Order: sequence, then structure tokens, then C-alpha cells
Amino acid sequence: MSKHVVIIGAGFGGLNAAKKLSKRKDIQVTVVDKRNHHLFQPLLYQVSTAALSPADIAVPIRGVLSACKNTEVLLGTVEKVDFASRKVFTEAQEIPYDYLILACGAKHSYFGKNEWETFAPGLKTLEQATEIRRRILTAFELAERESDQEKKKQHQTFVVIGGGPTGVEMAGAIAEISRHTLAADFKHINPSRTRVILIEVGPRILASFSSSLSERATRDLESLGVHVWTSSRVTQVTDQGVFIGAEFLAASTVVWAAGVAPALLNQNLGVPLDPGGRVIVEEDLSLKDHPEVFVIGDQAHCKGPDGRPLPGLAPVASQQGKYVAGAIARRLEGKAAKPYVYLDKGAMATIGRNKAIAEVGPIKMTGIIAWLAWLVVHIYYLIGFKNRFLVLFQWGWSYMTYKKGARLILSREWRTHTTSVPKNP
Amino acid sequence: MSKHVVIIGAGFGGLNAAKKLSKRKDIQVTVVDKRNHHLFQPLLYQVSTAALSPADIAVPIRGVLSACKNTEVLLGTVEKVDFASRKVFTEAQEIPYDYLILACGAKHSYFGKNEWETFAPGLKTLEQATEIRRRILTAFELAERESDQEKKKQHQTFVVIGGGPTGVEMAGAIAEISRHTLAADFKHINPSRTRVILIEVGPRILASFSSSLSERATRDLESLGVHVWTSSRVTQVTDQGVFIGAEFLAASTVVWAAGVAPALLNQNLGVPLDPGGRVIVEEDLSLKDHPEVFVIGDQAHCKGPDGRPLPGLAPVASQQGKYVAGAIARRLEGKAAKPYVYLDKGAMATIGRNKAIAEVGPIKMTGIIAWLAWLVVHIYYLIGFKNRFLVLFQWGWSYMTYKKGARLILSREWRTHTTSVPKNP
Repeated sequence: MSKHVVIIGAGFGGLNAAKKLSKRKDIQVTVVDKRNHHLFQPLLYQVSTAALSPADIAVPIRGVLSACKNTEVLLGTVEKVDFASRKVFTEAQEIPYDYLILACGAKHSYFGKNEWETFAPGLKTLEQATEIRRRILTAFELAERESDQEKKKQHQTFVVIGGGPTGVEMAGAIAEISRHTLAADFKHINPSRTRVILIEVGPRILASFSSSLSERATRDLESLGVHVWTSSRVTQVTDQGVFIGAEFLAASTVVWAAGVAPALLNQNLGVPLDPGGRVIVEEDLSLKDHPEVFVIGDQAHCKGPDGRPLPGLAPVASQQGKYVAGAIARRLEGKAAKPYVYLDKGAMATIGRNKAIAEVGPIKMTGIIAWLAWLVVHIYYLIGFKNRFLVLFQWGWSYMTYKKGARLILSREWRTHTTSVPKNP
Repeated sequence: MSKHVVIIGAGFGGLNAAKKLSKRKDIQVTVVDKRNHHLFQPLLYQVSTAALSPADIAVPIRGVLSACKNTEVLLGTVEKVDFASRKVFTEAQEIPYDYLILACGAKHSYFGKNEWETFAPGLKTLEQATEIRRRILTAFELAERESDQEKKKQHQTFVVIGGGPTGVEMAGAIAEISRHTLAADFKHINPSRTRVILIEVGPRILASFSSSLSERATRDLESLGVHVWTSSRVTQVTDQGVFIGAEFLAASTVVWAAGVAPALLNQNLGVPLDPGGRVIVEEDLSLKDHPEVFVIGDQAHCKGPDGRPLPGLAPVASQQGKYVAGAIARRLEGKAAKPYVYLDKGAMATIGRNKAIAEVGPIKMTGIIAWLAWLVVHIYYLIGFKNRFLVLFQWGWSYMTYKKGARLILSREWRTHTTSVPKNP
């Protein structure tokens, strides 16, 4: 009698677990996700700045797993897990499990100020990325036709809140697009007068890197024209801009890259959470009272060798997905799993053309070397040959021509005749 | 003193006019469009069936015209034209003109039943194409997890209303995607049981082609599993399906490809319109009482050599755009323009893999020959090397693997925290 493994979430963690389990004949796998696609999140900022198209960095989950004979994919939102009866409940179905892998990921946290979201979208989904793209490109169009100089300046001001890798990448990309890509296209604005302001509450950006690298990144950003404001706390976000204490910055476009919160599901699990809301897991990533349930990736609080929780990075989730698949296989063979150990492959962040930083243990890289390393790593990990090829081609094209291929302003509304509530089939 | 030519709409007509005028030093050109991109509409159905990404068939208007020194591009919706004072009014600006070219195109007509739009989107914009893509892919997902056989059948039923080229291409593409692309990906549905029903009110589909070609197209569609229902009038569309008189067809996905109506602007111009709402133009495509105003493309009623109005096709609009640019140039040189004559390069429609029809005067093509001709013509006309290359690559890939690259279900809602009305910057 084969065992049923249910995996919630097809991010890096869930997908790697499913792939590793796909060859076991004694296991049936069901992957549940509320979206139909796996998203290569590290490149999402490139969609929001019009360098790549959504389909370049997303693959249908079914397509990825179609060769796995023992695997089913279901579209659904998990609303509840019942540990006692070993069942997962979606809006449409209940799914019994023998083993459960929770890999739901994270979303942005507004630190209790959810109403800021409307004015400052985060960058976790393709929908958010195209919304940010729409706002950035629309701001330039509005600046072009604006005669009031103060409003023009507001349209040309872009605020990025949060100085982690995502914020740095966003700020650098917006600065580049305004200096190069759009420079020739507008007649009534000087795109180089665009202000890009990166706001960080801590004393330095990229706090997870060495301070020498974060200094270099700051200089690189400044050379692109980005203003880096550290030790600055945003106290209010409105449709007109942001307040930093008493200071007010008028900006049409604000991007939120500041905080991360795990899936809402965690609050209903009835298990111990860390102050950030992540599930505290055992050494084998299972739950203390439910060894058949594993939590991985951004959803879990797993201590690293230095005693601090592992960061919410793709390599962590991928490794944990593979580890948990192996742990389940071992248990089926009656063996205990060894504790999970994170193999740190380092971290990197890109700032712009020929500009990046990378840190692997004691090795530090900057400039074009780090940028090339970043390129190779990201191309390599982009799942599926086709996407890899297309992305490489688009990057090569952008690099040579300074053009960005996906400069589309798309509306949320598709109807031209009626305005009633749309059907959601 | 240079003359100011204002062009409303950057479709095939407006863009060709702008390009041809771009080298005149005695002319200033302003192109106004409510969108920031030019759309290659003939391939829009491929976006709606997940073969291509929106950015593959759209280019920023600014990018296309950035080398034109005498040309300005403005994002704006034209709300009124005042012929007496020679001014165009958008929501944000008033723009004076010496010559005006109206090239606003057309949208779908629901023949007075605009409330049907919510249940049966048309296919004129990228937003509509991604909405149809979302509905098609979601229907398969819902069928996969549905245990009720009647509902499953409803999710697997796709109705296309209108047997013109767009309807034929949509029906063929949906049939192909269900037979090939999705066949391996679902475990609980038999994608080949998908019903695709093409409904046409007239006695045959593709009425603008010879009847032998429309018969061949019908057979080709049927070989793909499409049911072609001619002489069938849709009398009601609901969220559950369509009524054809007393008959009811339960379908989760309905696509509207039946009627076309010119831009709303026409009704406010105060000039003679044909019964279809198109502006009746003179031999040189100008207005009778306002020779400085030209109307071209889908917005105009221009008689062809057979006395019937020219069809709403890209070649007609392109030729008229170039003609009008030449006519304005001649007038500035004090010469009269010769009457406009349409050079008929024929018409074609694709049905699926290796299946198409084409008709150029007395020459008729079918099967793989017509399909290759269709491929060459469409690649050739796709503006911009980069898009051409990317599209060719994706097509080659799809052809060899039967995979479609852009199978993304994207929601209209990007926010995950708040649900108030979004800001529209």
C-alpha cells in the first residue's frame, strides 16, 4: 500500500521535494498550489522593470511535473490542516495525507500597516510585478505630458522602501531604465532627472553581507544616481508619497521591499511560531508533535550553524525540499533521518549593468566579476531550457542596445463595454 | 512655419502615417494613443491560447518612433475633436492641429447586448487576450479537480462565437492546446474530450473567402475536433453558457469573435456614418467638409473596387496610413492627391499546425503551403527584429515539442493584504 505525500506550495522547496520523490513506486504525491505556475522569484524585479516578460520566469507546475507518473497537481488554496485526522482542506476539496510537506513561502509584511499596500506594492508575485511595471512606465508618461514642474518632479520620483537585495535590485534597475532605456524616447522630460531614493531603516543596506560589500554596493548605486538614505524610518505612505518622520517626499511610485511575513496558514496550525511568525521545526524539519509533518523554506524557522535562523533564500528552500524527500524515503525504509545541515553556497545581489556583489564564505566579489557570476548562477537555475535560452537572449539584447523588451502598460480592466463585477470562472 | 499633423491611434494605420511623415522638416507630428504600445493584432489569438507572451506581439510606441526627430508621442484618450477650432481634446490636454489623421481602430460589438461581455470576452486588446488565457487554463484546472461529471463537461466545453478569421483561429488553437499541449499534464480529465464549438450565424464560416476555401477550413477544423455550427444564432449568453434559440450549451469559457464596431468617438464627430458606424470618407480619405481631416483603417468606410467597403484588415490600414501621409505632403507642395486605391494582397487565416487557407486574387492555397505562407507573412510584418526572432524561436519550439510557453494563470488582483480600491497613478 503506497503512502500519500501531500506538498503544499510549488516554490523552490515544494518542487524540489516533489521531483526527488517522483521515482518512488511506494509513494503517491499530490502538489497543491493556489497558482498554476512556479515562479523564479530572484528575477521578479526584472519583470517589474520591463526587462523580462512574466512567462520568461514562470513555468506551469503541471509542465514541470508532467513526467512524474506518481505525481498529481491540484490548483487550490489550503485553508486548514487537521493534524489529528491527517487531512488538508482547500476551498474545493479535502485531501488525506500520510506525510505532509508545508512549503507555502512568504509574502510581504507591512508591519501592521496593510493599508499601505495600495500605495506601495510589494514584489512577490507576477501580478505585483506587472503592477509595479505599470506604475513605473505610467509615471514617465504622466511626467512627459505634465506642464506643472512640481507634479512633473513627483512623477519622476521613485521611492524604494527596504535596503535588502530586492530593494537594491529594484532601485538600481529603475535608475538604469531612466538613464538609458527611456532617455531617447521622451521629448519633454529629462529622464536623467529622475530621482530614485532607496530608504533603509538600518544603518546600512544589504545588512546580511559584509560591511565592505554593502559600502561598495552603496557607491555603485550612487554612481547610477540612486540616493541611498539609511537610518530612515518610513512613518506613513499615501497616494502622494512617503513621510519619513516630519519629512515628506512627493513620489508617484513607491515600491515596498521592506518586510517579509510567512503564509497566513501558520497562525491556524496551533504550533509554536517564532516572533516573525515562522514555524519552529525540529532538526529534521518536522513538527515536534507531528513527525509526519514537515515545514520548509520561508515558512519555517530553522536554526543555522551560527544559531540564527536560516535566511529566506531559494537555495535554503531547494536544499530543504530535497532533504525532506530523502527523510521521508528513509523513514519508509525504517531508518532515521540525519539532522538537516544547510550547505551555504553564499549570497549575491545585482545592482546594475556590470555591477553586483557576491560573498561565498571568505570570498568577496564585486563589479563585473560578481555580475558575471550572478548571471551564470541565475541562468543555470532558471528551470527549463527554453526559459534559459529566451532570458539569455533578452539579456544579451538589452545589454547591447540598452533597450528593454517588455515595456507594456497593461490595465487591470479588460472590458470595454461593461463595468459590472467580472466573472471569476 | 511648420505644419502640425496630429495622429490619433498608433495601430497599423497611424504608425505607418507617422513613419512616412517622419522625414519631413516642414512637419511636426504628434501621435496620441490611449495605450503605450502598438499591438500586432493578427497574432493576438496566440496570446489568448498561451503560445506567445504579450510582449512578443507588442512594442512601445515611443520605442518605434524614437528615431523620428519631428515626432512626439502622447499617452491620452481623445474625448472630443473640434473641427471648427482645429483642436483635439484628451482627458488632460488640448492639442491644436493643421492636419488630423483619425486612426482609432475598432472594438467588438455585442449588437446591443453589452452585458454579454462579462461572460464572453472579445479579442482586441492584450488585457482581453490574457483574460481569455486565464479562463481557458482555469477551466482545465477546474475540470481536473471536479468529480461531478456534468460540471466537468461544462468546464471542458469551449464556445467561440463568430466564424470569421479570429473565431476560426481561436477555435483551432483551443482544440490543439487541449489535444497536444495539455494531454500529458492532467490525470483526471481526458483533454481530448474537450468540446470546442464554433458558432456562426451565416451559412458558412470565413464568408469573406471563396466557398471552396471555407469548406476546406471546416474540414480542417473538424479534423482537430472542432464542431462547426453554421446558421446558428446565439440568443443569450450567461455565466453558465450560451443559448442558441431553445438549445442551451453549458460552457465555462465563451469567446466573442462576432461583431466589430468602430471607436465610440465617431458618434460625436457630427459627420456622416455608414450603418456600421464607420465614417464615410472621400476618395482621398478626407472628410467632405473638412479636407484637413482624414479617417483611415477600421474607423473609416472606404469603398473598394467592387463598391463594397474595404475590410478591417491590417494591410488596408497600413496602406491608408502611408497614402494619407503622402497626400498631406502633396498638399503642402500645392499639389492635389490622387484618389486612394487599395492594392489587394489577399487574405489568409490559420486553423492549426500545418493547416491554413490563403487567397490572393485567383490563387487559392490550403494545407501546409498556406500555413508556411502565413508564417512567413506574419513574421515579416512583426515590427522590430527582436520580436520577430523571439516569436520565431517560440513557434519553432512549440512546433517541435507541442508545448506552449506562456501557460500562466494571472489574477486581476495584485494585492494580498488590502482590498480597497486600487490607486491609478
